[in-house]
Amino acid sequence: MNLSSEIALARRLADAAGDAIRPLFRGEWSHEQKADRSFVTQADQAAEAAMRKLIEEAFPGDGIIGEEYGNRNPGAGRQWVLDPIDGTTSFIAGRPIFGTLIALLQDGWPVLGVIDQPILKERWLGVTGEGTTLNGAPVRAALCPELSTAVLATTTPHQFSGEQVEPFMQLSGAVAERKIIWGGDCYNYALLASGHVDVVCEAGLKLHDFAALVPVVEGAGGTMCDWHGEPLNAESEGLVLALGDPARLEDVLEAMAGHGHDHAH
Amino acid sequence: MNLSSEIALARRLADAAGDAIRPLFRGEWSHEQKADRSFVTQADQAAEAAMRKLIEEAFPGDGIIGEEYGNRNPGAGRQWVLDPIDGTTSFIAGRPIFGTLIALLQDGWPVLGVIDQPILKERWLGVTGEGTTLNGAPVRAALCPELSTAVLATTTPHQFSGEQVEPFMQLSGAVAERKIIWGGDCYNYALLASGHVDVVCEAGLKLHDFAALVPVVEGAGGTMCDWHGEPLNAESEGLVLALGDPARLEDVLEAMAGHGHDHAH
Repeated sequence: MNLSSEIALARRLADAAGDAIRPLFRGEWSHEQKADRSFVTQADQAAEAAMRKLIEEAFPGDGIIGEEYGNRNPGAGRQWVLDPIDGTTSFIAGRPIFGTLIALLQDGWPVLGVIDQPILKERWLGVTGEGTTLNGAPVRAALCPELSTAVLATTTPHQFSGEQVEPFMQLSGAVAERKIIWGGDCYNYALLASGHVDVVCEAGLKLHDFAALVPVVEGAGGTMCDWHGEPLNAESEGLVLALGDPARLEDVLEAMAGHGHDHAH
Repeated sequence: MNLSSEIALARRLADAAGDAIRPLFRGEWSHEQKADRSFVTQADQAAEAAMRKLIEEAFPGDGIIGEEYGNRNPGAGRQWVLDPIDGTTSFIAGRPIFGTLIALLQDGWPVLGVIDQPILKERWLGVTGEGTTLNGAPVRAALCPELSTAVLATTTPHQFSGEQVEPFMQLSGAVAERKIIWGGDCYNYALLASGHVDVVCEAGLKLHDFAALVPVVEGAGGTMCDWHGEPLNAESEGLVLALGDPARLEDVLEAMAGHGHDHAH
């Protein structure tokens, strides 16, 4: 599958989103603007509108799934999934670890994904059948011979509710406590693709949150699945795992089920 | 108090620490180096050694309190407090939101503080009696008329144990859930000084973790204290609050005590 035109478009989309977002980062917002998050909405809408315009010009028959402006051509076999600002709380707080997510789905499956950090100008691009790159240079997820030494990332403890708490706690107990990073949203998956993070475990992710992550992670040699080890899809419950080293999947699933190895033995 | 020589030295210390740390950020470490954190120790030691050498040359009578190489001249009235990498887990995971902390204590009280992010080249400098700057430009913490709309930051839920859990949970319940950022260590206090974060609440901080933060936060118009509203000191239990708007202190303490306003009323 030759996606060179689509890759070129994805780059232009990320450029356009970044141009819309950067002026609104660390702005001098009034208390009211902060309270009603209107400046986030403004950045989100400006970035999504700019991206939609470019897609409509380049591939008018393609579908678009966007957070702010809804769906276009919902029956099309190719769907662009846009999340202008993944990590809005980091954006609000002035932390440059949010990201713009762009995915191209072919018959429901993500074949191209971009995680773009417009402030740091870091762009991870993953394409099915090709390796993942960061600003054009190939990246590889890291091997992780033992789960006990993994770096585990997750965005917030508030995302885990009810029956989701225990599996996450058991997984976090299987890694060293000082090897857990909190916060980060999509940026954690990008760091996994670059070999710095070993496992990401999250709940409540929607299609627009994870579609772009899959080609980036898998093109770097990692794997993504749900909490049962099954492939992610639009009907997934949003329980997402990413592993830099697919060989640790069984260990992760066992740890989450409470059947992890006891380190004392 | 004219601290121009000390400010100039603090800048050179941060430069030297950054030069030592940058080459070790996002390095291609073996699994063993990651597991035993030897590359973090290497970065920590190299940065602290470089800073100590500069202090010893400039002010040989001054004391130094360093994490890696212990104390020098412990009886001196002036003490430099060094933490080369605050936020080691972010450093390990390749996230550029850790920081180098440098404080100068005069008779036990921090009169100069630096929070330096060497990858993003962001340097917050606070000096008693002068305003806080970010890369030389003045910054101000934000007013926060209502606690319910505050952005609250904290590094990890694991830092709260036993009786500390409930006050933090009550405080987090008093702000909007999607206004809490996790992770960040010293960088959260820097963002507070720049007006993007309103409240930071943490437990278990040691002198070398918070000494540099106080001049940065207070020079920007914010305040720092312990969980009882009392001034921080070396004998503090490590229960640290920072507020961008000191007028919200009573609201924060009431929320932590479980006496916050009920939003439903």
